[in-house]
Amino acid sequence: MSTDQHSTTGAYVTGGEAFNRDMRYIPTRITRDGRDGYPVEPGRYRLVAARACPWANRAVIVRRLLGLEDVISMGLCGPVHDARSWTFDLDPGGVDPVLGYERLQEAYFARVPGYERGITVPALVDVPTRAVVTNDFPQITHDLFFEWRDHHREGAPDLWPDAVREEMDAVMERVFTEVNNGVYRCGFAGSQESYDQAYGRLWDAMDWLSERLSARRYLMGATITEADVRLFTTLARFDSVYHGHFKCNRQKLSEMPVLWAYARDLFQTPGFGDTIDQGQIKRHYYVVHSDINPTGIVPDGPDLAGWTTPHGREALGDRPFGDGTAPAPLPHGVLAT
Amino acid sequence: MSTDQHSTTGAYVTGGEAFNRDMRYIPTRITRDGRDGYPVEPGRYRLVAARACPWANRAVIVRRLLGLEDVISMGLCGPVHDARSWTFDLDPGGVDPVLGYERLQEAYFARVPGYERGITVPALVDVPTRAVVTNDFPQITHDLFFEWRDHHREGAPDLWPDAVREEMDAVMERVFTEVNNGVYRCGFAGSQESYDQAYGRLWDAMDWLSERLSARRYLMGATITEADVRLFTTLARFDSVYHGHFKCNRQKLSEMPVLWAYARDLFQTPGFGDTIDQGQIKRHYYVVHSDINPTGIVPDGPDLAGWTTPHGREALGDRPFGDGTAPAPLPHGVLAT
Repeated sequence: MSTDQHSTTGAYVTGGEAFNRDMRYIPTRITRDGRDGYPVEPGRYRLVAARACPWANRAVIVRRLLGLEDVISMGLCGPVHDARSWTFDLDPGGVDPVLGYERLQEAYFARVPGYERGITVPALVDVPTRAVVTNDFPQITHDLFFEWRDHHREGAPDLWPDAVREEMDAVMERVFTEVNNGVYRCGFAGSQESYDQAYGRLWDAMDWLSERLSARRYLMGATITEADVRLFTTLARFDSVYHGHFKCNRQKLSEMPVLWAYARDLFQTPGFGDTIDQGQIKRHYYVVHSDINPTGIVPDGPDLAGWTTPHGREALGDRPFGDGTAPAPLPHGVLAT
Repeated sequence: MSTDQHSTTGAYVTGGEAFNRDMRYIPTRITRDGRDGYPVEPGRYRLVAARACPWANRAVIVRRLLGLEDVISMGLCGPVHDARSWTFDLDPGGVDPVLGYERLQEAYFARVPGYERGITVPALVDVPTRAVVTNDFPQITHDLFFEWRDHHREGAPDLWPDAVREEMDAVMERVFTEVNNGVYRCGFAGSQESYDQAYGRLWDAMDWLSERLSARRYLMGATITEADVRLFTTLARFDSVYHGHFKCNRQKLSEMPVLWAYARDLFQTPGFGDTIDQGQIKRHYYVVHSDINPTGIVPDGPDLAGWTTPHGREALGDRPFGDGTAPAPLPHGVLAT
């Protein structure tokens, strides 16, 4: 999805009301059996993402962890969209080289003429028809794992281990409502009361996560799972955006020893930190949400040097990829494409 | 002054322009010789301040350090003023019990009918005529020290020591332009360029102060001076307001070990921390500056518990009040009045 709820008025806050995310996405799935008309097929689909967006970030990380880069291509929108659509303004000529579009909206219209909901990333686009198949972000990463298994790289990790699946679903649900979406409920609160409630829920969950991760290297134990991917994309944006812009400011992430070490650990793992562009992240939030930052000025802070410091989490578990292996590291400073 | 530049439009940011503070105040002085018509006279004047405002905070601290509470009474405006004036909304009936005013503006009009500049605090008001004498904040604290000497308490500290006066003036000038006013230049910048410049200057000065204070307990050595009062009032507001609201976010004060210990040291000294109300401070900035926080939502953070933790600065000097003494401590949680 977009990092927010799109609106043709550019307004993200509704006065007097709590923030309520519109979760109606295009539910079509790309599956092995092609039951929705879109079978798994290498080279056929294009993942459209944006480095700014935490929901798209999930798919970018999972695609890389599973080694699907040569099977599903990726297009990247710039950090600043307008009220109508994310755009391909980072590409030469402002046009996605595969789809030939300037605006992601065109791919939505190719699927549903006059599509009226949010033009969101991540979106999986069918290249032959240049039409969006789905933008249902939790389903996308689920299916990248389960439906695209025949195309995973050798050594791809088991991101959805059967043995912990039930507990993992509960953890992911709480992380989603209280943290991933919780920061938005703080930032887009339309009343002091709804902000106060969102803030309380967020920090209750942050304390729960700190406690949980004090004795486990990752959320489900010694090995990285989908649950870690989903938490990481919010933590990576916490100090640079959510702390100030969304008023999630009891502490900085860097002031919470356990969560900060956990986040650095993942950041320094191939497939995680190499998907993060803090400049695009800051620019997106501070420019697009003009109703909470009318000047459009983007902060120069925070100092991000801490992300690469030693985290000391190895003692809690030394099998980050379980029976699998890490993806090949990228050269310093190169982001996953 | 107000914590900002008053404007009848409620706008603090001018698009495309750097922030430029209007420094034209009413320059009348209260002196021993009464040459401006206002002689020093116990019980005659009332200091009007607001706990929210860093410029007024200076006078509140100095009045207490010098023991002038029984000589100059104090009225306190609430944290949220409107575009025209600070108001006495905290007082019973919304009226200052000595002046009988609802709005500080009335005291300005009593002095200059139709007064058009900012209705600012601190203001010293002549009680017999109920008219503002002066709102010239740096002159006010200077004169509380030099002109009111005959009325200082026994043991009042020498806040302006002759031996360091020249260097102290230079330090105070740099602290004013780069830090006290520097945070406003960040927050009210009307362009990314003016913000970036202000941010660079602020952090250069913060690094200079960290370096200076690494080997000195206070800015001018082993003893508190007016220079410390002036720096403290900005540091006290740094993490709760300037870090997020004004985008002064390279680090939190609490992430700068020397400055954070220095600020806690002063906070824990009678006369400093007992003038600080973080609730009023946050409410003022986040509600009044509606052009940079249109929702008016006041953050619940940061966690302020750190302010009372040990600072370990005693080793750098053990004469905070020089040949004088500390003012009597107030009971825990009681603020100076």
